[in-house]
Amino acid sequence: MFGITPSARLRPSPYFEATLAEGVCAFTTYNHMLMPTSYGKPEEEYWRIINGVSQWDVACERQVQLRGPDAGKLAQILAPRDLSKCAVGQGKYVPLCNHDGILINDPILLKLADDLYWLSIADSNIWFWARAIAAERGLNVEVSEPDVSPMALQGPKAVEVVAHVCGDWVRDLKYFWFRETLIEGIPVVVARSGWSKQGGYEIYLRDGSQGARLWAIFKEAGHAWGIGPGNPNWCERVESGLISYGGDSDETTNPFELRMGKYIDLHVPDDTIGIHALRRIAAEGPKRHSLGVVLDAGDPVKPGFLWNPIFKDGVKVGDLTNCAFSYRLQKNIGFALIASQTVIGDPVDVMMDGRMQTGSLSDLPFL
Amino acid sequence: MFGITPSARLRPSPYFEATLAEGVCAFTTYNHMLMPTSYGKPEEEYWRIINGVSQWDVACERQVQLRGPDAGKLAQILAPRDLSKCAVGQGKYVPLCNHDGILINDPILLKLADDLYWLSIADSNIWFWARAIAAERGLNVEVSEPDVSPMALQGPKAVEVVAHVCGDWVRDLKYFWFRETLIEGIPVVVARSGWSKQGGYEIYLRDGSQGARLWAIFKEAGHAWGIGPGNPNWCERVESGLISYGGDSDETTNPFELRMGKYIDLHVPDDTIGIHALRRIAAEGPKRHSLGVVLDAGDPVKPGFLWNPIFKDGVKVGDLTNCAFSYRLQKNIGFALIASQTVIGDPVDVMMDGRMQTGSLSDLPFL
Repeated sequence: MFGITPSARLRPSPYFEATLAEGVCAFTTYNHMLMPTSYGKPEEEYWRIINGVSQWDVACERQVQLRGPDAGKLAQILAPRDLSKCAVGQGKYVPLCNHDGILINDPILLKLADDLYWLSIADSNIWFWARAIAAERGLNVEVSEPDVSPMALQGPKAVEVVAHVCGDWVRDLKYFWFRETLIEGIPVVVARSGWSKQGGYEIYLRDGSQGARLWAIFKEAGHAWGIGPGNPNWCERVESGLISYGGDSDETTNPFELRMGKYIDLHVPDDTIGIHALRRIAAEGPKRHSLGVVLDAGDPVKPGFLWNPIFKDGVKVGDLTNCAFSYRLQKNIGFALIASQTVIGDPVDVMMDGRMQTGSLSDLPFL
Repeated sequence: MFGITPSARLRPSPYFEATLAEGVCAFTTYNHMLMPTSYGKPEEEYWRIINGVSQWDVACERQVQLRGPDAGKLAQILAPRDLSKCAVGQGKYVPLCNHDGILINDPILLKLADDLYWLSIADSNIWFWARAIAAERGLNVEVSEPDVSPMALQGPKAVEVVAHVCGDWVRDLKYFWFRETLIEGIPVVVARSGWSKQGGYEIYLRDGSQGARLWAIFKEAGHAWGIGPGNPNWCERVESGLISYGGDSDETTNPFELRMGKYIDLHVPDDTIGIHALRRIAAEGPKRHSLGVVLDAGDPVKPGFLWNPIFKDGVKVGDLTNCAFSYRLQKNIGFALIASQTVIGDPVDVMMDGRMQTGSLSDLPFL
């Protein structure tokens, strides 16, 4: 394990001091911000998400704020998904594409008002993208990065903790919907969302000076339910089939290759970026698709930096874009971005750490 | 010091294995790539750059390639610097701005052919930016990330090593000029450039599979001149007044605030992005400027994540955007991005680690 050198290019989050106190020991960088990736007890952290409630610093899920008379128009130009019926207080998962239909991010869009939207983004620079489009098209909209830093509560007991802090109304929030509120005077947005399939909430802190206080409020409230620190969990997300933009996608990946077709509306206006390319790809059929891979060998794999090439009958047919040891399945599993001709059940070979491993293709999600 | 968790979002460089063998112990991330920041002997690494020759993995200085009939047109639209006389084989330092005249990167532009340019970028996503502009303006140009990974040789003896490997023609290269060549069959571009003021070259490797070989060739050739590993050096760059985009700039910084005015040509065509804003800022005068800061206290500072606020007579007037202990000056020095009313010699107070430190404003560079 190597160190990270502090730098003004890499911003700590408002929860940084709180996570230090919790014993954070490793980070990744995401949107030029440090995101905790380990508190040193990976299996304990995993089961906490599956069975209890886990508290995450995900301030790195930054917001691209669109504000002004043309905010809604810009949102629809950027997103090849029909937003015409999106209500204030509603969130939507929106794959963003470039003019060639290539995926460039997959944010949650939050509609706070008719003239105010947030794109809660994955790890790529959508500020530059949205500003370029807004300026080139002469739209009356300001694109900015507001002082907003999400914290997530994930796991089956998250609802109890968040209801204890915010009130029972959170139990009735529909998935991806949100409400603006105050927690002990701290301005937040409470959304039913989060990058796990175990249920939970994201608390969008709207005052970066209050990170330590907000962390402490939920930590204290969660004590009765055994709350503890965690982070977007490598194992759980693979089991659950959750896509990581930039990890599971490359410079040529379109949304249809990543099981995102249901979030693309081909009837959106013709000035939506990438829609012509997406209509063509939908008509022709994508060249790759996304399947699961189950490796035969049982020794738990370690995370790596690179995609692993996948072979079928000695011919390269795709890439293993991630791989994790599943604590529930007790197997090494991952995602294949692979030629569309392949099918579930196909035996494959994967080159890992210099040697071939055997496995087979499977459906997604695993659990 | 915290660990970095491996992830497919963070790419290792073609020199990764070579730097492991050299004993790399810390990294930063830069353009979604790992860049070595320490081999564990900071003072030895510093003096190697000042007095000898240092070998750097700067593959993270990625290339935004513009190729096609409109490549030159797009380059000029992106860069508010007159490129009309830029020759094939010439490089130029070009601040890039958005439509509001805000700095968004400061690459070296390399003109490889009339229809082929590289922008060798700092740490922000110019692929998205350039693609958005090219597509919105209907230009006939392909924007891509080629397989090109720079390695730097820096220090007064770098010229001897590069001449030994490439030939004496490298001694006659003018600063920022370059030549395409082969080194033992490996395709490279050799440029006289690099992010230090100690002289040197950048070798742009054009075949990522040959990183270990290219590293070894220069390591072996440099043996007689005491070559050793290094990286863009925190101390040397502060002494030399070199700007780090994203470290010394923020979301509101324009080039005039960072001593980049001499690289802006206000007469470039009206369709150049940001030129109207830049003409206005130039006429009004920027609100901040960049000066040096010398702290009075002598204990060497450690690198940090945040800017430190600067006060004059109790009023906040700017920010210390970096700070390093200078081995040559035996003082803590840094850059101030600070109100234009301040002048060299002004006493200031800087809030660092919870306490005020006294110091004074100075000219840049320090050395």
